[in-house]
Amino acid sequence: MQSTGYIIKHIKRYIIDIMGIKSLSKVLADDKYSTDKEVLLCYGYDASGIDITPAAVVWPQNTADIVKITRFAYENSYRLIPRGAGTGMTGGSVPMDNAILMSLEKMNRIIELDVDNLNVVVEPGVINGVLQSELESKGYFYPPDPASLNICTIGGNVAENAGGPRAVKYGVTRDYVMQLEAVLPDGRVINTGVKTSKGVVGYDITRLLVGSEGTLATISKIRLRVLPKPDSIVTMLSAFSSIEETGRAVAKIIAMGIIPRTLELMDRLTLFAVNRLKQVGFPEDIDALLLIEVDGNRRAIAKEAEVISNICNEFGGKIKVAVDNQSRELLWDARRSISAALYKISPAKINEDVVVPISKVPLLLMGIERLSEKHDIPIACFGHAGDGNIHVNIMTDKKDRESLYKPEPGASWSAKEPGATWSGKEPGASWSGKEPGASRRIKEPEASWSAKEPGASWSAKEAVVRELFELTLSLGGTLSGEHGIGLTKARYIDMELDMINIDLMKGIKNLFDPKNILNPGKIFPPDK
Amino acid sequence: MQSTGYIIKHIKRYIIDIMGIKSLSKVLADDKYSTDKEVLLCYGYDASGIDITPAAVVWPQNTADIVKITRFAYENSYRLIPRGAGTGMTGGSVPMDNAILMSLEKMNRIIELDVDNLNVVVEPGVINGVLQSELESKGYFYPPDPASLNICTIGGNVAENAGGPRAVKYGVTRDYVMQLEAVLPDGRVINTGVKTSKGVVGYDITRLLVGSEGTLATISKIRLRVLPKPDSIVTMLSAFSSIEETGRAVAKIIAMGIIPRTLELMDRLTLFAVNRLKQVGFPEDIDALLLIEVDGNRRAIAKEAEVISNICNEFGGKIKVAVDNQSRELLWDARRSISAALYKISPAKINEDVVVPISKVPLLLMGIERLSEKHDIPIACFGHAGDGNIHVNIMTDKKDRESLYKPEPGASWSAKEPGATWSGKEPGASWSGKEPGASRRIKEPEASWSAKEPGASWSAKEAVVRELFELTLSLGGTLSGEHGIGLTKARYIDMELDMINIDLMKGIKNLFDPKNILNPGKIFPPDK
Repeated sequence: MQSTGYIIKHIKRYIIDIMGIKSLSKVLADDKYSTDKEVLLCYGYDASGIDITPAAVVWPQNTADIVKITRFAYENSYRLIPRGAGTGMTGGSVPMDNAILMSLEKMNRIIELDVDNLNVVVEPGVINGVLQSELESKGYFYPPDPASLNICTIGGNVAENAGGPRAVKYGVTRDYVMQLEAVLPDGRVINTGVKTSKGVVGYDITRLLVGSEGTLATISKIRLRVLPKPDSIVTMLSAFSSIEETGRAVAKIIAMGIIPRTLELMDRLTLFAVNRLKQVGFPEDIDALLLIEVDGNRRAIAKEAEVISNICNEFGGKIKVAVDNQSRELLWDARRSISAALYKISPAKINEDVVVPISKVPLLLMGIERLSEKHDIPIACFGHAGDGNIHVNIMTDKKDRESLYKPEPGASWSAKEPGATWSGKEPGASWSGKEPGASRRIKEPEASWSAKEPGASWSAKEAVVRELFELTLSLGGTLSGEHGIGLTKARYIDMELDMINIDLMKGIKNLFDPKNILNPGKIFPPDK
Repeated sequence: MQSTGYIIKHIKRYIIDIMGIKSLSKVLADDKYSTDKEVLLCYGYDASGIDITPAAVVWPQNTADIVKITRFAYENSYRLIPRGAGTGMTGGSVPMDNAILMSLEKMNRIIELDVDNLNVVVEPGVINGVLQSELESKGYFYPPDPASLNICTIGGNVAENAGGPRAVKYGVTRDYVMQLEAVLPDGRVINTGVKTSKGVVGYDITRLLVGSEGTLATISKIRLRVLPKPDSIVTMLSAFSSIEETGRAVAKIIAMGIIPRTLELMDRLTLFAVNRLKQVGFPEDIDALLLIEVDGNRRAIAKEAEVISNICNEFGGKIKVAVDNQSRELLWDARRSISAALYKISPAKINEDVVVPISKVPLLLMGIERLSEKHDIPIACFGHAGDGNIHVNIMTDKKDRESLYKPEPGASWSAKEPGATWSGKEPGASWSGKEPGASRRIKEPEASWSAKEPGASWSAKEAVVRELFELTLSLGGTLSGEHGIGLTKARYIDMELDMINIDLMKGIKNLFDPKNILNPGKIFPPDK
């Protein structure tokens, strides 16, 4: 009987839901929402791979629309999930059951560029890369540059406090947000922050909203600080035959007080994966590559580039310098394709983005190597070495290990682009510091990643993630530098935060959203 | 009868208070607290001039002491007021009746300088200037530099989100705080933030505490980001014969994308006051002076200095360049003495620190001039013009106006230091662009500030402050850039923040401090 009751209850619920969600028509024009199955399917996922179909998708076109939608959700107790472009890595914008997914993609106007006061006002759906281009064409510069910049939105960037390669010198999204307009979970509109560079009137609600992963309010307008575009940029690559030495070079550059514009790491597996996706011809007979940029006054950065080059040499790194914009762009295109390239060879990979103090980067990289060996799961490391933020990709699919790791003969920069756009500091020197095949991973005989063996099980993945987090925390680090907690890391958050912190944060959530309507189930660990 | 009951009630309350406060001896050693009247008197004030004697003063020496004191206050319902050095301008650390004033001055250790990761851990009572010197002797640099840096503490700086002249380039205290240890109003210890440059795990409690004016938790330990010390500094003065043109020069420098290390304004009355206190010999026959510094690579800043110099010239500014460290230090000593100098000639002056967008600085300065004329109250303006943060000093005491405003013949830089340490860009050019006595304020005939006339009444001051705030807000500005709200501005906060903001902030206060014990009565407007 209980079973029948259960079924009846759910059918009733379903009918109410259908009826309820259809009444969106009372508050929104037809072109601003959809409950069509094929549409819903397109908005159920993000880059975490988690996929939950929402009950409806809505496309507000202005703040008034967001208010209407939010009030509808509040009054009818629908979960409401704000979404930028769905490029998040932790399921932060993945809907829950019976949720209205609110895509901000149509609110994509750059409202005002205030050149006198060096700031810009945008709607949340503006694409980061569109804003970058628009500003750069006028001589300005917005530093935060997540790898997904050609897709991701500023609203999503604010919700996640996005970083990117340039964060090592220029900081993260938080450092650029001056003012926010946001819609609270009950539909009231709040304006926070100041139009000025300073302001200390009351508590800092602006920075409380930045990085709150869409759980406290829906951001509807953003004023961002912009900078003058730097005069010049020097782009360098340095190839290392040891990943530990790479980490030491990174730590020394920072400890020397040089703060490059970017200081990006790509390990051997990463280089290999990118070469398979892009015609970039990274060397594969090395252990790691650093992609280093300095920017500013031409003469000042020439000096900085020289110091960096000397430090790299000290740790066995060989330097090449990009000689024009084209080669620079090629490199960055390759760098930004890493995630896609790694997905291609391991569609179920787990991408974590731990951070450690910069001096601990070598220990982190060595520890990850031990983890990879212990669990017999390949792990690709890349990312923002300059601020200790390493993207750790646990490659959990079955693949032909041999074909993955064997370097292609001549797969070096110079072979693909013969002498044209790159000047080697040591003319004629190939990237390879040692014989191909002599590198760390090739030597591992117990290849577990062959086509014949099954991929790592969930519990094995879980164990690697947990041990990675333990390692990170033991080095004084943090679980996430840019991806946030979302759904995928909620179960681990109490490894880093104690209950005093978690309870305070839950109190803040409850203060903003007492009905727990806005993006519920994210950040906080599930009740036990 | 009611009157007798009232007296008895208060006598009883007094006895309980005395008994209660004496029981501090149960939790603290004798040398860690005092209820002696003469001691209490020394801790009842700050730079706002407000003075309320506390019931006891306590000097914790470590976090455990803070916990004991906080629990004592929590359990016995005493108000608890954390205090750095009492240099605040808005009464933020002024005690309330029946309060325990907790001076953090004895927690003044620099715990750890992590040169590899460019950060430093300090106790809250470390003096800003002591930290500056300690770091600079080792080649590092902590940018926030409030004018009170030789007295004020880092804990106070964090509580107030302090700025300073260098904020125009380097940002404010908030931008340097990485981690906090703090004691919640119920005595629990919370650790917030990360040891790394990035971190997005949960809500940003660190930045919620920064600038919360000691109302949410008592900060007991701080990790601050430090920078490498800049290679070189160029220090310049530019003298203008029009304050409006000064504002235009400032706005143009910033709009050109040049971000100097400091861009400080001193108006005529300010220069006059400083000359009376210090042997600095500022010119008095001009309308305003800019104190401009650029820092970084030697060649890069030479170019920046040249551009700045040209912009100043364009608006009638005449440039002199400091030729050595001694003349530089002399200038900064003078700059930092402004507040004291203005107090000397107007002990009851009101010092506001409004901020407007940089392009609105000329309108703000002109508007303040009109306010001064309308209310017949002299107003001195100085401060951080480069970020639009002007310290507006309403000079409300009775004084001999003539003796105040009359320039001393020959009171110019070159007269005091004959050619030794300053190189004039235009050799022989005096600071005076026009005849002494021709300037704006001297011409005002209706001198209300003479010895024979009474000083401005409270309601007149109140009117000026309110109109200043209205002007500031109409220009898109904010009521405070660095001083905070404290007691003195609480009545005005709703001019800037709407009730949605204020209610949310009160909700946060209530979440952290449900018994309203920690620094009560600050920030929020009194209930009407």
